[in-house]
Amino acid sequence: MPLRTDWSREQCFIARGLNVLGDPWLLLILRELFVGNTRFDGLRARLGVADNILSSRLQQLVSHGVVERVPYSGGVRRRHEYSLTAAGRDALPILHAVMNWSSKHTLAPNGETIQVVCTRCGETSESALWCARCQITLDVESTAWEASWAPSPVALADCSPNMVVGPV
Amino acid sequence: MPLRTDWSREQCFIARGLNVLGDPWLLLILRELFVGNTRFDGLRARLGVADNILSSRLQQLVSHGVVERVPYSGGVRRRHEYSLTAAGRDALPILHAVMNWSSKHTLAPNGETIQVVCTRCGETSESALWCARCQITLDVESTAWEASWAPSPVALADCSPNMVVGPV
Repeated sequence: MPLRTDWSREQCFIARGLNVLGDPWLLLILRELFVGNTRFDGLRARLGVADNILSSRLQQLVSHGVVERVPYSGGVRRRHEYSLTAAGRDALPILHAVMNWSSKHTLAPNGETIQVVCTRCGETSESALWCARCQITLDVESTAWEASWAPSPVALADCSPNMVVGPV
Repeated sequence: MPLRTDWSREQCFIARGLNVLGDPWLLLILRELFVGNTRFDGLRARLGVADNILSSRLQQLVSHGVVERVPYSGGVRRRHEYSLTAAGRDALPILHAVMNWSSKHTLAPNGETIQVVCTRCGETSESALWCARCQITLDVESTAWEASWAPSPVALADCSPNMVVGPV
């Protein structure tokens, strides 16, 4: 872990959660996995991250059970891609909370916008966390991201491994 | 910033948010400020953090407008404490999302529990983000933390600067 302190035995739930997910690269990797960008080369290309950083962060995610390595056939060599576990999918509200905060408190360089939409009813969720119409917490199955710079909305449920539906 | 990459000009809202708040120490400092532990010495004592790390992180929070330095009279010298701005208070759902994830996916060392309670109606919020009874996103004014290891619930609205109501 990049943390200087091991918080895995802390009483505090926030500290223990940050011990696993409190690194910005980890959360951007999860973002990519949510939209189906699941292979090492694709992650490196989209994140612009050094090999050693990406490799160490993927190992951390795997060791904490947030991501799993899944083999696929790719030419002569057997290769692996990365798939979100249930624990990884449950991290979606963390990304949404960051996204929502950012939409209020950071400046989009070219006026970009992003909406979190409930795919069950089509409503935009103002909190990015809860669909007020369906009365549900938004999860992978019920979430689409509508980014102004993407050609079309990205329904996360449609993003099977390595099926990048849209750039975010 | 401890990040190797500046994400302040990214299209992606998650990346821009993490550029400000994507550091675990920052979020633990915010946790302390939410419960009224607002002075340097108190933060250092509770977080067990080195002076230089705490100092740099507080500077980052101030420079990003998440926290402000507020003078108070303390003996001969004029001292400062740290107070959440509106942007800082808006980070509460991020802490709640991490807390909620952690309660599902990390092991409490001694079976600790924590509940996020809506102070308007007294209901526990299962999502830690939304009060289903009041139909509101939980904010500082409407949130209490009920930790099994704390002597009493901590209503965040009662936590004025340096009035630590309960340990978390």
